[in-house]
Amino acid sequence: MSLPPFIRPEVAAIPDSLIRAVANAGIGRTDVIPLWFGEPDLPTPRFICDAAAAAMRAGETKYTPSRGIPELRRTIADYMARLYRVPVDVERITLSASGMNAIMLAMQALVGPGDNVVFTTPLWPNCMRTAMIMGAEARTVALEHGPQGWRLDLDRLIARFDASTRAVFLNSPGNPTGWTMPAAEQRVLLAECRRRGIWIIADEVYARLVYDAEVAPSFVPLAEPEDRLIVINSFSKSWRMTGWRMGWFTAPPALGDTLAKLTEFNTAGPATFVQHAGVAAIRDGEAEVKAQVERLRIARDLAFQRLAAHPRIRLSRPEAAFYAFFEVDGMTDSLAFAKELVAKHGVGIAPGIAFGDAGEGHLRLCFASSPELLTQAFDRLEIALR
Amino acid sequence: MSLPPFIRPEVAAIPDSLIRAVANAGIGRTDVIPLWFGEPDLPTPRFICDAAAAAMRAGETKYTPSRGIPELRRTIADYMARLYRVPVDVERITLSASGMNAIMLAMQALVGPGDNVVFTTPLWPNCMRTAMIMGAEARTVALEHGPQGWRLDLDRLIARFDASTRAVFLNSPGNPTGWTMPAAEQRVLLAECRRRGIWIIADEVYARLVYDAEVAPSFVPLAEPEDRLIVINSFSKSWRMTGWRMGWFTAPPALGDTLAKLTEFNTAGPATFVQHAGVAAIRDGEAEVKAQVERLRIARDLAFQRLAAHPRIRLSRPEAAFYAFFEVDGMTDSLAFAKELVAKHGVGIAPGIAFGDAGEGHLRLCFASSPELLTQAFDRLEIALR
Repeated sequence: MSLPPFIRPEVAAIPDSLIRAVANAGIGRTDVIPLWFGEPDLPTPRFICDAAAAAMRAGETKYTPSRGIPELRRTIADYMARLYRVPVDVERITLSASGMNAIMLAMQALVGPGDNVVFTTPLWPNCMRTAMIMGAEARTVALEHGPQGWRLDLDRLIARFDASTRAVFLNSPGNPTGWTMPAAEQRVLLAECRRRGIWIIADEVYARLVYDAEVAPSFVPLAEPEDRLIVINSFSKSWRMTGWRMGWFTAPPALGDTLAKLTEFNTAGPATFVQHAGVAAIRDGEAEVKAQVERLRIARDLAFQRLAAHPRIRLSRPEAAFYAFFEVDGMTDSLAFAKELVAKHGVGIAPGIAFGDAGEGHLRLCFASSPELLTQAFDRLEIALR
Repeated sequence: MSLPPFIRPEVAAIPDSLIRAVANAGIGRTDVIPLWFGEPDLPTPRFICDAAAAAMRAGETKYTPSRGIPELRRTIADYMARLYRVPVDVERITLSASGMNAIMLAMQALVGPGDNVVFTTPLWPNCMRTAMIMGAEARTVALEHGPQGWRLDLDRLIARFDASTRAVFLNSPGNPTGWTMPAAEQRVLLAECRRRGIWIIADEVYARLVYDAEVAPSFVPLAEPEDRLIVINSFSKSWRMTGWRMGWFTAPPALGDTLAKLTEFNTAGPATFVQHAGVAAIRDGEAEVKAQVERLRIARDLAFQRLAAHPRIRLSRPEAAFYAFFEVDGMTDSLAFAKELVAKHGVGIAPGIAFGDAGEGHLRLCFASSPELLTQAFDRLEIALR
């Protein structure tokens, strides 16, 4: 008698993270400069930690309502309204146990076998995996890199839609490219999706990490509350809370009960005192967010200057997020190159192939680090590229 | 042109929680005694909060390895080995963002459309929902209530298995019944599942809340590390950490990479400083766990004495967990009764129907509360039952 498969085939088929594969090659080595993960180098601001500690001591250690504590939902609704200068009703806001988990719950709510979801690449690979876990097809459209930076051909995107397309996933500003979708294109896509009843899942976790505006173009001010639109945000990047596991949905009120149910069946939401700290982060953190962008701007300029000056490297100046995603002339196997870079030169960066086939030939470097460490990393990279 | 459905039909079909439906009827009322949720009344012990606060201040606010910080995985492996007097390799341990999330990830790893999972009822409904979200069939077998308390007919359970059965889900000690599967039955089931290649998902989150032993019978000491067995534990009940959202898997080492991947695509695991607090909870919390059981034993005895004495009520003395799950003579609509109990008498308890059809005619009361509050609740209940 032959036994059924150990692991479900759809999940067994999901490849391991190639970012982790490179990072694993550097485990335990203190001499490696780690620029592989998408994470600010500094810890969470102290006042946010203090707010969490105070909430714990006040006994805020029990279950919360499924959609989050009312005070945080209200604080987020007001924040979104202020940021985008449109009314945002609290009934559109649901907390999630990370931006990642919001993507997973959106897929659970919307897709199953027979459905497809369209993604643009290069893209942080985890986004696509959520659709695959649900048994849906993950379709891709490659962004194009030209003299104006990364651009999406909207006609090519829309040409990938068919009767089985349930959702289109957009990460703008994007990881790893920094690609930022202009509002005019968002409007066109929104109209097309409205007509077809296709959901837009807009991963806007880098919305505040932009260098020429206060905030990146968002679907929030363009859409009606009832539109088939799920906007995903996170505390991780703007407030340096990667380890806290908290994000939020802005979604139609009619999706609220479903998101509450799915939250109950997945995580019951972020930890209780983490939610209380979230109120403090938004209420008192504006200066920190702005200071972080200024610090990142210096790092961005340094990264661009050093990389663009190299004869074998081609990149555009990142408009947003905190990655340099650059092409290396003559490098055809980014995974092997990144592994060798760790092993021989002590620089940890992510291989472009980790972000889909469209990323091959590239490397991603997270520049959310100090100028000193970045300079050292670029020096080492130059030696490796000789 | 008609639009595709707003919400995926499989998810839209999942009924709302009937526990929440009753609790919603009491929202904003301070006079209601809330015994509806499965949650200790006291907050988390102070030393655990202090450990979390110290970790935050030490900068433990960034991403962790997908399977959890090594120190906590090792602490848990040692704890499991001590508790069950068998070796437990750290490669079997993976952290999860709550016991609930561990169930969800187990289903993602194992089941999809065409598969079925067998559950015993009455059961906390969220467990079954995870299989339904994945598009699998949730089959049920009712426990039987007799003079010896709640019992499972193992032959009836096994008779529900067929070629499409991927897993059997067992919550022992069980919510809401307190049912505890004897080791002899666990052995028989393990042998049968081994033969057929069926996974056992053992939700053992109430393992420490037992009144006649140090720990409830577990599959851990009976199984080989390679067996198709996923044991799920949580910090919520034993250490009073419901709001912290942390649990763990004990699973075959060969499932480790899959659990790591699924963790990355779902939540990235519990918050970083929460993991550090988990080390303190296990290392220094044994006295608290035992003190809590003693406190619960007093509450259990009070609940049993008051309820069993009532002529319209039938129940067995709970052997484990912290629920009184009792039958009320002449009550055929537990939801209507529970709603009226909130509205007219200010007592919040869960309707038996919330735990499946096998639960109708019953009510569930969480006795993890003070004797004073419980006495008041029983006084009110007696008035309602006149």
